[in-house]
Amino acid sequence: MSEASPIVVPRGFRASAVKAGIKPSGGLDLAMLVADVPCTAAGTFTTNRVCAAPVQWCRSTLPSSSVRAIVVNAGNANAATGYQGNANVSRTAALAAELIGCEATDVLVASTGVIGHQLPMDRLETGLRSAAPALSADPESFRTAAQAILTTDTRTKIVSETRGPWSLFGMAKGAAMIGPRMATMLAFLATDAKVREETLQRILSEVVDESFNCVSVDGHTSTNDTVLLLASGLAPGGELEGPALEEFTETVRAACRTLAMEMAADGEGSTHFITIDVEGAADREEARTLARAVADSPLVKTAIHGADPNWGRIVSAAGYAGIPFDENELSLWLNGVCVYEKGTPTTFDADALSADIRGRRDVTMRLLFARGEAAIRFWTCDLTAEYVHLNADYTT
Amino acid sequence: MSEASPIVVPRGFRASAVKAGIKPSGGLDLAMLVADVPCTAAGTFTTNRVCAAPVQWCRSTLPSSSVRAIVVNAGNANAATGYQGNANVSRTAALAAELIGCEATDVLVASTGVIGHQLPMDRLETGLRSAAPALSADPESFRTAAQAILTTDTRTKIVSETRGPWSLFGMAKGAAMIGPRMATMLAFLATDAKVREETLQRILSEVVDESFNCVSVDGHTSTNDTVLLLASGLAPGGELEGPALEEFTETVRAACRTLAMEMAADGEGSTHFITIDVEGAADREEARTLARAVADSPLVKTAIHGADPNWGRIVSAAGYAGIPFDENELSLWLNGVCVYEKGTPTTFDADALSADIRGRRDVTMRLLFARGEAAIRFWTCDLTAEYVHLNADYTT
Repeated sequence: MSEASPIVVPRGFRASAVKAGIKPSGGLDLAMLVADVPCTAAGTFTTNRVCAAPVQWCRSTLPSSSVRAIVVNAGNANAATGYQGNANVSRTAALAAELIGCEATDVLVASTGVIGHQLPMDRLETGLRSAAPALSADPESFRTAAQAILTTDTRTKIVSETRGPWSLFGMAKGAAMIGPRMATMLAFLATDAKVREETLQRILSEVVDESFNCVSVDGHTSTNDTVLLLASGLAPGGELEGPALEEFTETVRAACRTLAMEMAADGEGSTHFITIDVEGAADREEARTLARAVADSPLVKTAIHGADPNWGRIVSAAGYAGIPFDENELSLWLNGVCVYEKGTPTTFDADALSADIRGRRDVTMRLLFARGEAAIRFWTCDLTAEYVHLNADYTT
Repeated sequence: MSEASPIVVPRGFRASAVKAGIKPSGGLDLAMLVADVPCTAAGTFTTNRVCAAPVQWCRSTLPSSSVRAIVVNAGNANAATGYQGNANVSRTAALAAELIGCEATDVLVASTGVIGHQLPMDRLETGLRSAAPALSADPESFRTAAQAILTTDTRTKIVSETRGPWSLFGMAKGAAMIGPRMATMLAFLATDAKVREETLQRILSEVVDESFNCVSVDGHTSTNDTVLLLASGLAPGGELEGPALEEFTETVRAACRTLAMEMAADGEGSTHFITIDVEGAADREEARTLARAVADSPLVKTAIHGADPNWGRIVSAAGYAGIPFDENELSLWLNGVCVYEKGTPTTFDADALSADIRGRRDVTMRLLFARGEAAIRFWTCDLTAEYVHLNADYTT
């Protein structure tokens, strides 16, 4: 949604953000999202073996039915920080719990920023003490929180939906692993709908697989990726079930897809937003593997940046994905133009297609295989010299 | 070896190269390597599912004990070209066979260049008719052939070794998949040592695994990768066995490693040559997977380009390789400096390390795991804005 769009704050939530001095820039870098009542909560996290301390903390407590707060800091990932890193998360949760009156285990923590540096706990603690009194249900405080969790993002990523008695608020940061200081994919969703924790976890895991897990900017999986969904249950009408629960699931799915697409669209240095449709795969994971191989190929990404309809780079990227397809059954459409049909090149106007790619930000690729019925939609962006500058022209 | 180093031509081989007009640049683009006697021959090829027609041709005939020639063209990959592409390879082999007097099945063919375009057979045939009469055992003709197989390479890649009675010549092109027109990794080795075909194939498969399969510039596996080894057996002393065969194997291994390292060192737009040592892995493939994840991470490659000792990018890249290691058992050395020890950051002079990286072209990374005894040495280069320009600022 545009940064000016109105935000509906779900019942029972307050937010605040402060400049704790963790970001070298001195900008907003510490956000709190607090619930007035115990919430059911679900989460999904990075699969990276080098896993940030806050991710380990959240994993140990979720799913839960007594979550009261989420504390997020930007500027420091608290990843690869050893035992001291784990101790710092515990201290953060304990202090937040003391400030709002709950158990430390009811506080979730997330971090994003540079890897391998210990958190400046003095600044973080001072920041929490000033953020707690500032907690407010005012939409503006949520907008400010959405700004505080950003690192190299160029804009906030917010969704706000109302469905009858309940509403859903979501905010995210990141454009995959493109930050010069190791950006991270973070997303936080809050609703006043009443949903039990197991159901909430099932729904979140399902929709994340079709949204955030379908985005790649440079294929570098973060150590901190975190998606959290809290439900206060304060909306009238009681626990959602049947059609109402279905509507809730679809709303969360749409919200996560919107936030995921905004990440790829905000890919660092990017000039094109690329949507890859893989169809005719044997199963969903196979479709994802094929789409990811294309999305992560520097040659495919630079070709699009150069408005070069060099489709050979696309089919050859799919070719090394490790899926034993028959090239004589593969067809490819680039911006709607069939350039490769069942293993044979077609005759098409390369100049016109090149002009079409150069002319607009959105690019579509459709790869049709003949291995089955599975399909997936995947999002990425092009690779530009600006990406290299932003990630290389920086020295610790 | 330097371009001026003397070349020893193994007994029984002749070479030539011409400008057939396949490359838009009009440069040398067609090379012939011919043997006066039937050779035992071995080959290894790309694993890409989209596999070039010449690769399919070579696969169907190797290993063999009657190979008489290798025909190589640059400027057109003859990949993703359907049945017409297969027909063109057959015609190429048939004409070459007619010109030198052998069976078409005794002629090997290799191509590199743009994907998805049919070969200009008229030009290729005219080129072959002028290349055949020019075949010569003069070292200069081999040097010229080594130039004709290049695409975006900045220099020829040649090895020439003599061991007692026999000698080995090798030439290669490519810096992995970095060419704006889909470069390819090609390597051709010729020896007058007498080695039976099964032995030759075993030796080649073994050494390729430790040389060419340990190089990555951008992780984009070509549709045309080909390594061929021909042995004329004309050297005195008869068939190699025991220690002599061991020496031959080690010589081929060293030659392939040299050519492979020259590819990474010639990585398009690169400013740093990176050597990655992975130790303590459970097995060799696991070590390769970990090394490749680090080598292919755009964030790792841009960090080195920026002389940024941002080691978090390196350990996190290993973290998403899919190997279930314990981060508390991982240690990392960057240019010899231990920056991460058993899951905890060390204290080191970041400015000094940054200056060290900026100061020289060679960079070394050593990742030590505690999962086993397997190790591997992998080579890559950094990612620069020049790479993006070279691959994007080109329109078909």
